[in-house]
Amino acid sequence: MAGLVLFVGMANAQELANFSRGAAQAKSPEMQGDKVTFRLNANYATYVNLVGSWMENPYGAGIPMVKGEKGIWEVTVDMPSPEIYTYNFIVDGVAVNDPQNYYVQRDGTRYLNMLIVPGERTENYYEANKRGTVSYRWYDSKLLGINRRMTVYTPYGYEANPKQKYPVLYLLHGGGGDEEAWTSMGRAAQILDNLIEKGLAKPMIVVMPNGNPGQQAAAPLGLDVKTFDRNDPAFANAYVKSLVEEIIPFIEKEYRAIPKPASRAIAGLSMGGGHTTSATILYPGVFSYICPMSCGIQESETLDASLQGIKKAGYKLYWIGCGTADFAWPGTEVLDKALTRNGMEHTLYASDGGHVWANWRLYLNTFAQLLFK
Amino acid sequence: MAGLVLFVGMANAQELANFSRGAAQAKSPEMQGDKVTFRLNANYATYVNLVGSWMENPYGAGIPMVKGEKGIWEVTVDMPSPEIYTYNFIVDGVAVNDPQNYYVQRDGTRYLNMLIVPGERTENYYEANKRGTVSYRWYDSKLLGINRRMTVYTPYGYEANPKQKYPVLYLLHGGGGDEEAWTSMGRAAQILDNLIEKGLAKPMIVVMPNGNPGQQAAAPLGLDVKTFDRNDPAFANAYVKSLVEEIIPFIEKEYRAIPKPASRAIAGLSMGGGHTTSATILYPGVFSYICPMSCGIQESETLDASLQGIKKAGYKLYWIGCGTADFAWPGTEVLDKALTRNGMEHTLYASDGGHVWANWRLYLNTFAQLLFK
Repeated sequence: MAGLVLFVGMANAQELANFSRGAAQAKSPEMQGDKVTFRLNANYATYVNLVGSWMENPYGAGIPMVKGEKGIWEVTVDMPSPEIYTYNFIVDGVAVNDPQNYYVQRDGTRYLNMLIVPGERTENYYEANKRGTVSYRWYDSKLLGINRRMTVYTPYGYEANPKQKYPVLYLLHGGGGDEEAWTSMGRAAQILDNLIEKGLAKPMIVVMPNGNPGQQAAAPLGLDVKTFDRNDPAFANAYVKSLVEEIIPFIEKEYRAIPKPASRAIAGLSMGGGHTTSATILYPGVFSYICPMSCGIQESETLDASLQGIKKAGYKLYWIGCGTADFAWPGTEVLDKALTRNGMEHTLYASDGGHVWANWRLYLNTFAQLLFK
Repeated sequence: MAGLVLFVGMANAQELANFSRGAAQAKSPEMQGDKVTFRLNANYATYVNLVGSWMENPYGAGIPMVKGEKGIWEVTVDMPSPEIYTYNFIVDGVAVNDPQNYYVQRDGTRYLNMLIVPGERTENYYEANKRGTVSYRWYDSKLLGINRRMTVYTPYGYEANPKQKYPVLYLLHGGGGDEEAWTSMGRAAQILDNLIEKGLAKPMIVVMPNGNPGQQAAAPLGLDVKTFDRNDPAFANAYVKSLVEEIIPFIEKEYRAIPKPASRAIAGLSMGGGHTTSATILYPGVFSYICPMSCGIQESETLDASLQGIKKAGYKLYWIGCGTADFAWPGTEVLDKALTRNGMEHTLYASDGGHVWANWRLYLNTFAQLLFK
């Protein structure tokens, strides 16, 4: 059928058009041995810098690139240790993504290229062989008065085994994030796929809601964003209320979730860590696995009573992750001491580094192996 | 609980950090009446141009912006007619996205900002009130020898009505696209949500596979891409084979799909239009609704016999969409004439414009109302 050949040829033409419009011909980034080279075709630029999250000052001016043949700017740096990093170029003072790099992650309103350095630390951040399903679901929040989106991960085999029920991890993002943060920056689907495939974690559903109570979804084209005073604790609790009183029933009705405390885990970073401690204090006994990350707690007269409520209701794991360089470390120590003072068994997982996704990926990769066992 | 206030405060701090790092303070784009203003903070740039898909030459140098106070470059243009457009800035010769614009779509390897102009033409491209679920699913292709990703849309109420079965539209992308093209550039989920909510389209499942036979997924981090000769028609047919012999059974096993020809539609643009005509010629009777878009067909000795096969097997709708300025228009006329010559009822929907998403969104919004009725 000659016709078929024509279609394919046309497709080719269009594809080539698409790609050539978008991309310079300089390969970037190029990893060779212990070096990585970045290139940008910018013949008319006065200067081009490279800014990477592995640099001492990831928010600084970066390092200069050198203009070579055909207007290709280039710089070669030592390969940073295995991790997922972000970077972009600064062209005459303006941030530019690498048109040669397919991998972009969104952090709030910023799009940054990813540099993933292979190694033991990152092996679970790549695609596994058996992959679960990532879905975007909408639920009606009567408490918040809006229809809201969440990301739901169901493990490999969920659809093919209609009789199996699963435990659920509620995985919460931080400030500036949204329901896509854990799948985009956190590599949550890949981490769970790999851990489950290796038999290191139980097959589980992972629910990643949007933790900004006034927001319907990450990119709400044509959707209203409710304004609110984020510093109003009542409003912060309104989301926690919605999580426990609306999202959990929604998930346990529409997914094959085991509707028991022993099959519910809650974990969150930064603001999401606050939501984690708030939810477990306000609703003791709902979650048997409690994993706040990079978030502190403040001494208060009610703290001991709140923690005693959790102790009385019972829990199976209280796992705290924080970097010793994190601004949340002092508050983490307060939580650690308070749990000890109240005779509550817990784990304090202290890592290097600060308030960064490198740590939150590491924490998920670590505590997910302890859940529902 | 003072602790809760602290968490919220921390969240705020981090969020502000995220946003301020990413964004200049100049609002862009700003729509006012029949004008739209674009701004970029680029104090050290020698020149900044705006390139938009609504311009006469969307791939040209664009139009110059003027440097104003505080290094903010600005240009105001007439508001183009209601549609979704893409644009970016050219800063000293380098393509730059608008850091103020949240809305970015990916076309192959290019990330471009979206400008959506409200109007009757675009009303179904915004979020509806009742929204379906968009899922990323993986299936094993024995024919292609790889595990591959597809995007699956299930309509609002699918999860809440476990006994209802649905017809399925197989919606195929073009060259340079992938399994995310129809949801990102095509607004397929929003179009179906709106049409179904308004009672203009039947609730249906929409399956959007990856039509690049060597590719496992759109952003295959750590996945191999099989190389192949795209001009080898046997290989093009290998994907069509996988679509009919692997993807359809997969969907009809794991989703509540009605497993009948009268409940199967196939539609595709450009290369996907080629896949549409190929699949219906190679597997007559499998799909009762056939909608190739922006794709031509070549006269060949086997063409009449192929079309007679479809006629004999029976179909309910043969709907062709193409722009009169599209390079595929002549081939579309060949298909139109061949269907007439063979006494096959069909619709030729001729629109203005060329080989662009503005047309493919319009076509989906049009033919989706004719399916399964």
